[in-house]
Parts: sequence; C-alpha cells; structure tokens
Amino acid sequence: MINNKEIVSINEIKNLSIKELEEQADLIRNYIIDNVSHTGGHLSANLGVVELTIAIHYVFNSPTDKIIFDVGHQVYTHKILTDRKESFPTLRQYNGLSGFPKVSESIHDVWETGHSSTALGAALGMVEAKKLDKSIGEIIALVGDGSIQNGLSLSALNFLASKKDEKVIIILNDNEMSISKNVGGLSDFFNKLRIRKSYSLFRRITPKFVRNTFKMFVYKNDNLFTNLGFKYFGPIDGHDLKSLIKYLEYAKNYNKSIILHVKTTKGKGYLPSEMDCVGKWHGVGPFDKATGEQNQKYLDGYSSWSEEIGKILLEEVEKNKSIKIISPAMIHGSGLDLINEKMKDSIIDVGINEELACLMAAAMSKNKIIPIVSIYSTFIQRSYDILNHDISRTDAHVIFMIDRSGIISGDGSTHQGIYDISITCGLPNFYISMPRSIKQAKELLDKAILTPHPFIIRYPKGKVLLSNDIDNGFTINDYSWEIMLPIASDVCVITYGDDANEFYYAIKNSGKNIGLVNALFIKPIDFELIEKLNNKKVIVYEEVIKNGSLGSMISEYILEKKLSIEFKHFAIDDVIVQEGSVTDLKNSCGLNIKEIIEKI
Amino acid sequence: MINNKEIVSINEIKNLSIKELEEQADLIRNYIIDNVSHTGGHLSANLGVVELTIAIHYVFNSPTDKIIFDVGHQVYTHKILTDRKESFPTLRQYNGLSGFPKVSESIHDVWETGHSSTALGAALGMVEAKKLDKSIGEIIALVGDGSIQNGLSLSALNFLASKKDEKVIIILNDNEMSISKNVGGLSDFFNKLRIRKSYSLFRRITPKFVRNTFKMFVYKNDNLFTNLGFKYFGPIDGHDLKSLIKYLEYAKNYNKSIILHVKTTKGKGYLPSEMDCVGKWHGVGPFDKATGEQNQKYLDGYSSWSEEIGKILLEEVEKNKSIKIISPAMIHGSGLDLINEKMKDSIIDVGINEELACLMAAAMSKNKIIPIVSIYSTFIQRSYDILNHDISRTDAHVIFMIDRSGIISGDGSTHQGIYDISITCGLPNFYISMPRSIKQAKELLDKAILTPHPFIIRYPKGKVLLSNDIDNGFTINDYSWEIMLPIASDVCVITYGDDANEFYYAIKNSGKNIGLVNALFIKPIDFELIEKLNNKKVIVYEEVIKNGSLGSMISEYILEKKLSIEFKHFAIDDVIVQEGSVTDLKNSCGLNIKEIIEKI
Repeated sequence: MINNKEIVSINEIKNLSIKELEEQADLIRNYIIDNVSHTGGHLSANLGVVELTIAIHYVFNSPTDKIIFDVGHQVYTHKILTDRKESFPTLRQYNGLSGFPKVSESIHDVWETGHSSTALGAALGMVEAKKLDKSIGEIIALVGDGSIQNGLSLSALNFLASKKDEKVIIILNDNEMSISKNVGGLSDFFNKLRIRKSYSLFRRITPKFVRNTFKMFVYKNDNLFTNLGFKYFGPIDGHDLKSLIKYLEYAKNYNKSIILHVKTTKGKGYLPSEMDCVGKWHGVGPFDKATGEQNQKYLDGYSSWSEEIGKILLEEVEKNKSIKIISPAMIHGSGLDLINEKMKDSIIDVGINEELACLMAAAMSKNKIIPIVSIYSTFIQRSYDILNHDISRTDAHVIFMIDRSGIISGDGSTHQGIYDISITCGLPNFYISMPRSIKQAKELLDKAILTPHPFIIRYPKGKVLLSNDIDNGFTINDYSWEIMLPIASDVCVITYGDDANEFYYAIKNSGKNIGLVNALFIKPIDFELIEKLNNKKVIVYEEVIKNGSLGSMISEYILEKKLSIEFKHFAIDDVIVQEGSVTDLKNSCGLNIKEIIEKI
Repeated sequence: MINNKEIVSINEIKNLSIKELEEQADLIRNYIIDNVSHTGGHLSANLGVVELTIAIHYVFNSPTDKIIFDVGHQVYTHKILTDRKESFPTLRQYNGLSGFPKVSESIHDVWETGHSSTALGAALGMVEAKKLDKSIGEIIALVGDGSIQNGLSLSALNFLASKKDEKVIIILNDNEMSISKNVGGLSDFFNKLRIRKSYSLFRRITPKFVRNTFKMFVYKNDNLFTNLGFKYFGPIDGHDLKSLIKYLEYAKNYNKSIILHVKTTKGKGYLPSEMDCVGKWHGVGPFDKATGEQNQKYLDGYSSWSEEIGKILLEEVEKNKSIKIISPAMIHGSGLDLINEKMKDSIIDVGINEELACLMAAAMSKNKIIPIVSIYSTFIQRSYDILNHDISRTDAHVIFMIDRSGIISGDGSTHQGIYDISITCGLPNFYISMPRSIKQAKELLDKAILTPHPFIIRYPKGKVLLSNDIDNGFTINDYSWEIMLPIASDVCVITYGDDANEFYYAIKNSGKNIGLVNALFIKPIDFELIEKLNNKKVIVYEEVIKNGSLGSMISEYILEKKLSIEFKHFAIDDVIVQEGSVTDLKNSCGLNIKEIIEKI
C-alpha cells in the first residue's frame, strides 16, 4: 500500500480504508498548517473541511462529477489532492497558486470564485449544460451556512426547488460561523437542528442497510428545506469520514436534489484557530505554528487602516446616537470589533448581504439616521443597483467607508479593490474621497456627516503611519485638493490616497522639480486647480481601472476646455489583476512610482 | 355623507361603511381604466390592488404608518387617494406624475422604487429608524409573489426573521403572475396554499371575536414562513374589503412581524386585462376602453426592436441547440413569447432574479452552451458583480441582448437605460455593440456567437424601421466602424444605434458637409478611424451617462496620442433623467440632434 506518511492524490484515495483516509486527513491538515504559517491564507475554513473534501473525492469522480466550492477559500485540501501538493508553498504569491479555485490551474477546478454565494447558481447552470452534454456526472455544491443566507443563494435554492427532475447535491457546510457571524432566521433554524445531533444515531448503521434504513432517520418534521421540496439529511458529523462517505454515497445514488447538512468545526485541529470566535484566524498572515502567535503585521508607529478607521468610527458613534454602522459580515475584517463590544446598538451586522446593507442604509437615511456602510471595495460591487437606484437617484445621505480599496495582495483577481470608483463616479449626487492619512480620514468623515448626500471614503488594506510626517497644515474645508509639492513646476502629478505619500518621497528623493497634488476628492473634481495646470505636463496616477476614473474625467475636461496640457494617465488598463504582493502587482500594471518619477 | 359619485381622500375614507368603500373601489377602478386608456401605464397590477390599497389606508394612518410599495408600479390607487386625483391625468408625462412612488410628490410616498424587491430591506431600515424616532408607527411592506422570490427579498425576509422584537407587516400580494410568470419552489408552495382557501372560513367571523378566535384559523402546519418564525395568515381574498380590513386590523394589533398572504386578481374589473395570461396588459400604451384594443404602436413598415430581436433569436435557437436564452421574468416584454411557445427547451425564465440569470449563463458558457441573457438595460445593473467577477474575469462567452437601452419614456428615473455602457466598458474581455438596423443586429448576433468572449448587443425600446433605407452595403466584418457620411469633411459626428440614423437625416436635411460614423462597436474602439479624424472637429453623441462612455474613452485616446482634434461630447452629464417622452427628455439633457447640427 501507500507510505502512510505521504499525501496521495484523488486517484489513489479511492483505494484507502477509513483508517488510511483518517491518516490522510491528519497529513493534509498538518501540511496546511505548516504551509499557511509561512504563506498566510484562509486557515480556519480550510481546516474545517479536510475530512469533507476527502470524502467528496472518495465518493465522486472529479472532473466528470462537478465539485463546486462556494466562496472558494476552502479549497486547500482539494488543491493538495488534485496535483497541486508540490506547488502549495507558492500559495497566494505572484505567479504562484491562487488561494481560490482557478480553472487555469487544474481540470478539477470547474468553477472559479472568490465572492460568496455563487455555487448554487453555477450548479443550476451546469444542470442546464448536462441536458446537452451527457458526459457531465453529478453536480455537487459545497456551500457554507453564512453563504447560503445570501440572496443569490436563496434565490437559486428557490429556483432549484421548482426543478423537480433535475439534481444537485447540496452540501451545507455548517460551521456556526461565517466570516463574522451568522444572522437571520435560517441561523435560528440551524441552531435548532444542531441540538438534534441525528448523526450520532446514524453512525451505528452499517453500509449495506444504508439505502433501506435511511428513510427512518430522515428528519421527520417539516423544515425550511423540505418545505421547498428538498430531500434533507442532517446534521452529519463533518469530521467522521465513515459517516460522511455513507451520506455522500446515498446522495450519489438518490435521483433528486438533496441537501446534506454537515456540521464542521472551523479551524479543526489547530487549537488557536479552533478557539477563535471573532474571525481572527479566518484570513491570516504568517504565524508561529508552535505558539499560535500571528506575526506582528506592522512596525512601531504603524497600524492598519481598517483598525484606525474602526477607532474613528467608534468615536463618532459614541458622540452621536443617530449614526449607525452597517457591516455585511465584516465586523472583524473592517476593524469594528470594539464598536461591536462597546456600542452594540450602534452597529448592525446583516450577514453576507451587501445589497441588503446598502438598501437598509438608504431607508435609514430617509428617516433621520446617518448610516455608515462599512464594506470592502470588492464587495460594494454587489450593491451597484442599490447605489444607483436607491441612493444616487434619491440623493440619500449614506456614508460608505470602503475598505481594501486599490490593488490587493494575496487574494488575487476576485478581490481587487479597483472598480469602485469606476462604478460610482458616474452616479449623480455621489461624493468620492480618499484620505492619505488618519487625520484626513477624520476630517473627511466629519465632512461626510455634514454633507447630506451619498459620500464615499475609501482606504486601502495596508499599513498606515500613525503620525503622517508630511503634514503641511492642510485641512479639508471646501472640496479643494491638497497641494503637497508646489505646482509651479513644469510637471505635476495628481494622485490620491497612500500613493500621494509614496509620490511625495519619490519626488523628494529624485531631487526633481515636480509638483504634487493630492486629489483627495475624486468627485467633485477641483477644476480650478486643473485650470492652473494649463501649459504644463500633468500625470494622473491611480490604482483603479482606467475607465470612468479620475484621469478619465480630467481628460474630458482638458479637451472640452481646450487646455494646453500634456496629459499622461497611469491606471489599470483593461487587464485582470491577479495574486501577488502589491509591489509585484503594481509593477506588472506599469504602476511603479519610482520608475515613473525617474522617467520624467 | 359624501357624494358617492366622488372619490374621497384617505382622511375621509376612515368614516365610510364597507358598502361605501366598495363604491369607492368601483369609482377608483373606473378612474384608473379611463385615465390609463389615454396615458398608458401599468394597468393590470393597479387594478389588482384597488381594494387592498383602500383597506390599508382605512386601517393605517399614513404617513405616520409607513406604507412601502414594492416595485412601485401598483401605486395608482394610493396616489389617487393621497391628493393626486386631479393630477392623475398627467401620469408618466414630462413634468407630470410619476408612475411610481415619488417622495417629492407627496408625504405619503415614503419609499421610492421602480426596481423590484427593495420593500423588505427598506422596511428593515425603517425598523432601525423607529428605535430612535418614536413617531414612526407601523411599517407595512406590500410585496408581490414574484418579487418576494428575488434574492434581495429572501435575504431581507431571512434577516427580519431573526429580529424577534421588531415588527414589519408583510402583505404578500399574490396574483399568481409576476411580470412574466413565477418560477421557483415558493411558487409551488403558493399554489398549494391557494387551494386551501382558508379565507372563506374566516369571512364568517364577526369582528368582536377576531383576536380570540383568530388562532383557530391560523394555518396550522409548518410552512416556509412559519419555519422562519413568522406568524402567517392566508390566503385572504384580496377583493373582499371586509375580510381585508379584519386581517389588517389584526396585524396592526399583533405585536410581532406577520405575513398576510392576500390573493388578488391582476387586471380585476377590466376583462381584457383580467383574461391576459402572458403580460400583455402589464404595461400598456393608450387603448380603446370599449373594445380593449391597444392602439397600434407602430406605423406600417415599423416594428418594435424587442419583437424583431425576438424573431432573430428564434431563428438562432432553431438552428443551434447549444444556444439557450435566459430571461429574468421578461419573456413578454423582451419579445420572447414565440420562442417560449415553439422552442420551450431553448429558453429559461429564472423569475425576477437578474443576478441568477447572469450567473447561470456564466456556468453554462463554461460547459459547451452559448447562453444569451435577454435583459433590460436598467435591470442588468442588478448583476454588476456577476458581470465583473464571474464573466469578465473568467472571460466567459456569454451574450447579452440588452433591451430598453438609452433614454426611456414613461417609466422615469428608475428605468433609464443609460448606465450599462458605463459599468461594462471598464470590464476586460467585454465586447459592446449597438446596431442601428435589424440587419446589423443579425450580423452582430452572428459575430457574438463566433466570438468566445462576453458580448453585449444593446438596442432601444422604441420602433425600428423594418427595411432601413440607409443601407450603404456596409457589413460587419472585423470591428471597424461604419462610415455613413464621408469623413473627409471638417466636422465629423460619431454616434451609435438609432441616433446614427437620426443624425443621418438631420445632416442630409441641413445640407451641411458633416461626416458621420456609426460606432456600432462601443468596445473595442476603432482607433484607426479616430486617427483619420486628426485635425478635424469631432462630435461624440450618446444617450448614456458621460462617465465611462465611448466619448470618455475617445477623449483619453486623443490626449494620450496628442491628436489635434477639437472635441465635443454630448451625453448625459451627472443628472437624473425623469419621466416624459424621449423627445422631451433628450431636449432636457441637451441632446436635441437637430439643434446640434444647426449649431455646427
């Protein structure tokens, strides 16, 4: 047989005994912990589904059977089992392995994702494809308990329920905690079911009787899923390989859609992660495996933007009861833990429902509340129609704190924060801003609270210098831009956010005579300042897609006003930005600031 | 008392007897039919809720009690009862009454909408507001059976279910047909309930016993709503005022969230509309009240874009079984009735779930199907994240037939088709096109089928000339633009779609020497042609928002390439476009083509 100290592949896995599969689980779990302690990554979710993934590959035949991972951040075991064991140490690095399913990496990755709740819709698409392509086998969707409560999942579930002759195997991976925590009626329902522990009964059944006796153990009462017309089993112990395999085999042989409700422990097998109840071990950087200490992310004098913005928001809600923070399951990620502890009434977690977060904010704003939606740039994309139809159109006073704006390391193409400006700049009534320091963030928030219109304050994922040393006494008053280096020179750079600081030092170091403007309002544009740049060379630099960006709006203005400006625009031009360090990714997009300054 | 030949207002309504309320219902119903036969509008939905709206206003006190109409196209009775009886004949006209709730029209319109499924989320926002503002009374959301199956509704319903101490009265307006027809497990559930007719029992109960005896008649078995934790009653006869008032009063006095499932007949009281089962009377133009004949929309030789595109699509699916059409509840509106009749297996109606439509298409495209999503421009906004994360990012071969593109008459600000280019132009891999004739539409569709990338073909709501007489022999080959009038002249107009035809005639009639280019590909841009326009004046004209538009991209190119082009861009510049005729609206946006040509 196999050397039981080595991880095998999906081809070999089918020949193993339960005991050997359990050994595999241990090996894989340790391999994940080892590697992620160096590369960083999504630890908890992956440790939770080691046995489940093994069981799925034991029972089903990938890629004939289509295994769809929702969200996709729980695919490490799948990647290790499907020919990517060797490259696993390159996880999340430039030109390395993606932390999410990736069609270009393997034929076993049949569906790419990164945003939650697309698995059931994708499964429905594959069900249609199967009608024409008989080579498609079973269609299996693995969905988390947080993700299934998103509208897109619920609508797909509802649609599938009406397709009586079509089959999807839905594995509900219930770890009692989505990224932040679950909310909603379905959560209550899950809680009730968890108490039943029906799987303990089932363990005692021998395989040969499975199909005949299964019916006896079906959850008898009506529940939400059976009401929709689904066959439903659960909860099943998600770390008991024998039990998992039995249920999965039943599902495989059953001729209709079926829901297997599997109970897993997030972080299973690594104590610090297993004990975590706020999401500290959801996405991690490198850490010390022995002590469980996460490497300090920032040098002294630095902090993270999210954490500092969290503190500013705390101050605001302590001062003003009409301010309410709304988070779509990102309490920890967005640095809102303190508010959640101290000012519970001032914060609302709506679960993974970005549209609902923005929609509730719109309605609150029309009823004497100042709502602040705290959301990642990549996730505000999911609310575009609400921003348009319910917020811009009605000129609602909603404030958006857009976290993770700009190029993002590690997570790759699904998480780049480079689209938010493009989709909001064209919306009437919107104000869009980006501070380059905590001080400016505070001033912008004060301004946003006093401005009765939709107002965006965006900030990056990275570190922030606590006392920004480029303080030139500028304070935000009207919507004028900040002149960081005199614009009297022949060349002037316009940029915003942290990039403004980086340009400042690059220009200083170059010894060149270049002006620098911090366009801390991307909208409205400081046209008066632009007029002053007539007869100069102007460089606009931004870490967002070119179309619909600040530079794009400035170029229209220059042309329409017939200004004599030599214009150069650095932005992300019609390419998909992948995973890697921010530096690597910027370089690959032609956004190396030092090089740009050198070439002037 | 009142003159029973006159419609009263909500203040007086509370003093009326059931009989008098019934008279009011008749008066209002006739008033609606009369008026809509002249103005056009949403007839069926409004005739269905006359009694229900009267009953709501009888029981509740607007605007202290917040009445939220989902979708908002069923507010005519509400408008007539709340001080807009006199202005009702200006419905959907320029500077007239909106066909949807409008805050600026009345304090009784507490929530604006036009897109479906926002009512429950808005109600949740108001629930939050009520915690601080005790003057807010009951919160009532009126939601249709199609709309509640949208993901946004379902996620809000799920979230509300977890808020045990908070109350929303949900009135489920079940007319067995959303815009096209309902799909999904919930529909099956509704069908089962409809058979029960529990309301017939309830009719016999006298008011004084209501609260005590109600429990007996509660739908005893678990159902989907009770599983989520809601109190639920239904179905209730939505045309029986006595019964409606009883249930609404119960709901008012009950201290928790409650769902009243009301069964109404769409089109009630006007036979042609009542008999309609495809949606022909959903949104109508002027019609002959006596005969029920809808005025012929188009002169001989003309047809509607939707209908003609429907025919082209039918030809394609008849030829090729791998092509599947996906419609989010818009079979009739998008001219797909024939496909639905003849080629049932080639078309999928996913209900009012735009995101799901695009998501399924993405998955189908990865499995040997060529999916064509047929969708209105204003509704594709709801799928932005799918277009980005699942289609552009993965370069999926999905074709979009975007109906109702450009400025839209009647429906107003919520339905303008002016954002689709802005949100898709910046997405890598996308091809965006707009034909100016049926012939070009066919050629573009052929091209789209052969182009393995996301491909948009957009077309307007209006009429189309069947044999376009500006046929200059141009055929689509590569992505070159069509030169309609020689570009050798000093001035050249670049535009696309029907506007290209209109410019052609306007230029011809003016006798001026002006070039004309039909940019039938908005992306990719024909840069070679732009280079040829160096040293000329170029006018770009488009019926979309300026930001992220074709003109915006051309202006960047002109500047970066240092072309000597005098550039003028006509587009919709940071304003909300309201209701009115297309001509009025174009004029109000500075988009009068004749005037533009005159001024050159």
